[in-house]
Amino acid sequence: MEQPSKVRCAVIGATGYTGAELLRLLHSHPRAEIAVVAGHGKAGQRIAQVLPSFHGTLQGDVASLDVEAVAKSADAAFCALPHGASAPIVRKLRDVGVPVFDLSADFRLRDLSVYREWYGEHHAPDLVPGAVYGLCELEREALRKADLVAVPGCYPTATTLAIAPLVKAQLIDLDTLVVDAKSGASGAGRGLTESTHFAQLSEGLRAYKVGGLHRHTPEIEQSLGRLAGRPVTITFTPHLVPMIRGILSTVYARVSADVTAERCTELARALYEGSPSVTVLDPGIDPDTQWVRGSNRCFVSYTIDKRTRRVIAQGAIDNLVKGASGQAIQCMNLRFGMPEGLGLEAVGLFP
Amino acid sequence: MEQPSKVRCAVIGATGYTGAELLRLLHSHPRAEIAVVAGHGKAGQRIAQVLPSFHGTLQGDVASLDVEAVAKSADAAFCALPHGASAPIVRKLRDVGVPVFDLSADFRLRDLSVYREWYGEHHAPDLVPGAVYGLCELEREALRKADLVAVPGCYPTATTLAIAPLVKAQLIDLDTLVVDAKSGASGAGRGLTESTHFAQLSEGLRAYKVGGLHRHTPEIEQSLGRLAGRPVTITFTPHLVPMIRGILSTVYARVSADVTAERCTELARALYEGSPSVTVLDPGIDPDTQWVRGSNRCFVSYTIDKRTRRVIAQGAIDNLVKGASGQAIQCMNLRFGMPEGLGLEAVGLFP
Amino acid sequence: MEQPSKVRCAVIGATGYTGAELLRLLHSHPRAEIAVVAGHGKAGQRIAQVLPSFHGTLQGDVASLDVEAVAKSADAAFCALPHGASAPIVRKLRDVGVPVFDLSADFRLRDLSVYREWYGEHHAPDLVPGAVYGLCELEREALRKADLVAVPGCYPTATTLAIAPLVKAQLIDLDTLVVDAKSGASGAGRGLTESTHFAQLSEGLRAYKVGGLHRHTPEIEQSLGRLAGRPVTITFTPHLVPMIRGILSTVYARVSADVTAERCTELARALYEGSPSVTVLDPGIDPDTQWVRGSNRCFVSYTIDKRTRRVIAQGAIDNLVKGASGQAIQCMNLRFGMPEGLGLEAVGLFP
Amino acid sequence: MEQPSKVRCAVIGATGYTGAELLRLLHSHPRAEIAVVAGHGKAGQRIAQVLPSFHGTLQGDVASLDVEAVAKSADAAFCALPHGASAPIVRKLRDVGVPVFDLSADFRLRDLSVYREWYGEHHAPDLVPGAVYGLCELEREALRKADLVAVPGCYPTATTLAIAPLVKAQLIDLDTLVVDAKSGASGAGRGLTESTHFAQLSEGLRAYKVGGLHRHTPEIEQSLGRLAGRPVTITFTPHLVPMIRGILSTVYARVSADVTAERCTELARALYEGSPSVTVLDPGIDPDTQWVRGSNRCFVSYTIDKRTRRVIAQGAIDNLVKGASGQAIQCMNLRFGMPEGLGLEAVGLFP
Repeated sequence: MEQPSKVRCAVIGATGYTGAELLRLLHSHPRAEIAVVAGHGKAGQRIAQVLPSFHGTLQGDVASLDVEAVAKSADAAFCALPHGASAPIVRKLRDVGVPVFDLSADFRLRDLSVYREWYGEHHAPDLVPGAVYGLCELEREALRKADLVAVPGCYPTATTLAIAPLVKAQLIDLDTLVVDAKSGASGAGRGLTESTHFAQLSEGLRAYKVGGLHRHTPEIEQSLGRLAGRPVTITFTPHLVPMIRGILSTVYARVSADVTAERCTELARALYEGSPSVTVLDPGIDPDTQWVRGSNRCFVSYTIDKRTRRVIAQGAIDNLVKGASGQAIQCMNLRFGMPEGLGLEAVGLFP
Repeated sequence: MEQPSKVRCAVIGATGYTGAELLRLLHSHPRAEIAVVAGHGKAGQRIAQVLPSFHGTLQGDVASLDVEAVAKSADAAFCALPHGASAPIVRKLRDVGVPVFDLSADFRLRDLSVYREWYGEHHAPDLVPGAVYGLCELEREALRKADLVAVPGCYPTATTLAIAPLVKAQLIDLDTLVVDAKSGASGAGRGLTESTHFAQLSEGLRAYKVGGLHRHTPEIEQSLGRLAGRPVTITFTPHLVPMIRGILSTVYARVSADVTAERCTELARALYEGSPSVTVLDPGIDPDTQWVRGSNRCFVSYTIDKRTRRVIAQGAIDNLVKGASGQAIQCMNLRFGMPEGLGLEAVGLFP
Repeated sequence: MEQPSKVRCAVIGATGYTGAELLRLLHSHPRAEIAVVAGHGKAGQRIAQVLPSFHGTLQGDVASLDVEAVAKSADAAFCALPHGASAPIVRKLRDVGVPVFDLSADFRLRDLSVYREWYGEHHAPDLVPGAVYGLCELEREALRKADLVAVPGCYPTATTLAIAPLVKAQLIDLDTLVVDAKSGASGAGRGLTESTHFAQLSEGLRAYKVGGLHRHTPEIEQSLGRLAGRPVTITFTPHLVPMIRGILSTVYARVSADVTAERCTELARALYEGSPSVTVLDPGIDPDTQWVRGSNRCFVSYTIDKRTRRVIAQGAIDNLVKGASGQAIQCMNLRFGMPEGLGLEAVGLFP
Repeated sequence: MEQPSKVRCAVIGATGYTGAELLRLLHSHPRAEIAVVAGHGKAGQRIAQVLPSFHGTLQGDVASLDVEAVAKSADAAFCALPHGASAPIVRKLRDVGVPVFDLSADFRLRDLSVYREWYGEHHAPDLVPGAVYGLCELEREALRKADLVAVPGCYPTATTLAIAPLVKAQLIDLDTLVVDAKSGASGAGRGLTESTHFAQLSEGLRAYKVGGLHRHTPEIEQSLGRLAGRPVTITFTPHLVPMIRGILSTVYARVSADVTAERCTELARALYEGSPSVTVLDPGIDPDTQWVRGSNRCFVSYTIDKRTRRVIAQGAIDNLVKGASGQAIQCMNLRFGMPEGLGLEAVGLFP
């Protein structure tokens, strides 16, 4: 497949946080070019007015979405839209032949009945079978030729990367999986809510969607189920933490008596060999979300609680990068024959 | 027992965070009086120089500890010292007859061999049998006549109050207990560390002492074991969160199919009836650490994950108040025949 | 004047941040009683649903405002309503004889033409002449018999208390006054905005209403002008800081060569002698907003820059307490013949 | 001058915050290569142990400084050492012919008597005359051939860039200059202090070194004095703000009646034309430190307070990037004939 020297990218839904992050990363990508910046509610406003970090960098206005224009001027489209709203637009883009990297949940779940249960009616069910789940570390080959990529959710990315090596190796008792995940506020998006009002979130910490209610639950279960070769059901509790970016997923499961942290670490290193975005920390080092801030990295680590024979697997990411926009670009890199980590080499801010 | 109209209090180790919080709370207590403010490294400095919120309020200097002087001028002593350092001083105070509320870990574990395993040699083992564990909600009667109170740790307080009603009612499978707890930075104390350096903690979130290494583990296990009537072993993972105060403990355990959130809530309300410091939230409301900030309250709640038949019990406290100094004063109130919640009525800051 | 043993208080506009703070402080006040909790948009909801720190403490629902009912059940009313909306309700309350402590800007400016310029039409202009400005330290005697108190704004409180002693003593060149003030997010209220969305405020710092546009400007100028006996015009720049509570006002002015920090400190101590809420720090100690968090205190300090012959006067408060609700209660204490600092003794949280 | 295709860089003092930031930026620079990572106290430790964001990216250990080795393996050296400690090492590096970009204060002040007054004895006074002040926007041409660059301080960068256009154009009354600056905690470095202990900084805001005591004062005065052609004395007050990164400098000065914000903006745009790192915002837009976080940009803006005829000039930077390490690399780019902004194009994180 011949590839363009620069991939011309359309960012649709550019004015939310994942849209802004796509622009930030594409702006520094050596073989990408921002061709379309489309938004809905804020079309017509100057980009820098809506995304002030772009003052002096990105000129021009936020455009209304024009699918025909995208087809002409862009080689690829990133859709950073809410679930439900995304599917109809993805269909139009696919109808005019544009490869799509969709950051919504609309094409993540392969089983339409599961989608319906958690999200409601699907607006483009026929596209679901052709979509590829964009967790590069597990779906690398399929992504190289995918024209519709369902970029994973943030919690599923941190959680699945942490526990996948152990599930694949059949090391854990799947019925004992408990996922306690913690996220910064940007994961809740740009929409204004009391929960994310500074005065009410700062110095606060709380769980939400407790009891198996969060929509990322079936997505994690799907990935783990595929690895396990049987259905997996988990207890998943997300928490909101007073920080801007970052997800830490702490995963608990029973293991047999002979499983060591070293063995888990080796398995993970084997699985992620050649993956530029995953670093498996040595046993004894616990990942910190601060260490991956602004980067497309996932740090994972493994500890055994010998007293209770449980493994504690941890995964830390920047939810807006490896948990969303960076991962989408990683998928684009694969699809357009570029090195998987191109433009995504940045190390996290420290401090 | 005749009681003084005002309890004259000595605060020993007054210059750390729990010491400062004791002073703050005693300062507003209608029937307490601050008689001694003793510190070690900072003796001789003005109190307000060390604890700047007391500028204009508490005059005078931090004193060196003089046990004889304490015996003369104080009716009760609060020891806010590190474990190990506390026991010898507690012994001296007890030798001169002063009732002691000890905020260290030195008298919390009844089994000396367990203490040795987690903390090292004990410096006053003979006092251990007479010490009462200061979790007022479970030990109220014993505390009324206790002369040595081991004030509970912060994580054990939030965790035990959340899960105690279910353990007592034998509602959960004790072998499936997983405690994922999150704490603000003040829990790590006033000592300077990289982990609590602002630039490295803000925007960061991490687990620590993973794999059953945290010293609060046996303390939680002891309390649950007493309630269960058999040994209990838990997986306990503490996390450090970028906020000053607050602990949220998220506790997971398997329950039988017929257990509902309503049933758990009822049991907890029954157990905590008449307890001024515990509020059992209605099912569907998840406690937030911000809601208890500055107060001596513990908010608990219960949710059932029907898909996996697990209960998620949550407990939120201010680690410096209900998790330390407020709880110590609550014990003092009981011991001196005052209403349990006297001087501790303050509602949390909102926001 | 005979005074009730407990002042029955109505809080109108109870569901915003200053309303919540009134409830928090009144709840702990030994001679106040919460008689009415009225809100507008949230009437009919449970108080604890709207103000979650009150779970387990304040039962009942938020009421709709019924002025007749207030007159019957309350001895005093606190109005925590937006400017413009407050005046008509204050009039009704005054018509039925209820003393009012108004936290809006509606009765702060004595010159109606100035009010109109900054706020628009006034809805109860006839009440303005009888209103007393509630800065207790400067208006103590008038407040003892005031039936309508205009509780000062947050920035004016910190700024005026810092600089008043120097203006009064004619120590500074009034034409050189520059006020650079910094506030936490709660000062912007509970209304949701992008500026106070956690992800966009955290790690951010910015000035706003730059160039003499902030409505607190004329309020500061009025107070300083009264002390100076001539009109005063200032440059006032507020900044928004990523913290919940706190205002620090840094005030600059030229002084003559012989003015020392010690002289400024003495003048301030003389002016604030007997004032329970103001602490004048020794020269060399700079106030920190953290030191007054949750307290009704104002810490002020004075430094001379000898190289440029400027004084730097600083004032730090908790904007919701001394900058709003605590100050309102301080006024109520004076009006009802109670000690000025009653129920307001709490020391700031440290840390 | 022939230039290497990749500049091999030595980072000396790599384990502090500006050292870490140099590594982060050089790691992504297309024409730089990290040749030496030297530290003092942490030599021998793994780089990633000391700088955890480099796990999986930078292998190897922190080296002890070996000047001969640097001369062989590096084309340029960045010194990120404390003032006083830097000069002797800079001398050694210059003795072996290595171009040096020094981030300490040791070569910033041209007048040795001023250096002595603020910092003490100078350890390489003979090198001072040949050093070039690394504010690229004002010293571009000199920097192209500088072998010793004194990289500016963080406060001077934000302040000087904001006010320079007005000083140069003689638009302001220099005797009225007041600089009120605010910085995040990383500006205080990695050393542990009570002031930067999370529990004591979060929710706190305070001024420090008040009254003309901060060492950046003479540096700002020197730059403004050169532009003005006469000595300038300012009142400079730094503040510590609870955020990791960012400086906002708010500068006040009297202007004549006919000066408008538009005129100031035009002058600044003229001065900074062709400067890739400075963006002059339209009047009415106030810069926010969050908008430049992680980027090498400085946002400046101008407002006129017509009531008092003062200009308010604002400058916002990321103190670790444009205020330190990014600026050092910008100087290196100039010195090695590369585009000034190469490797520094990254847009700030939003949010």
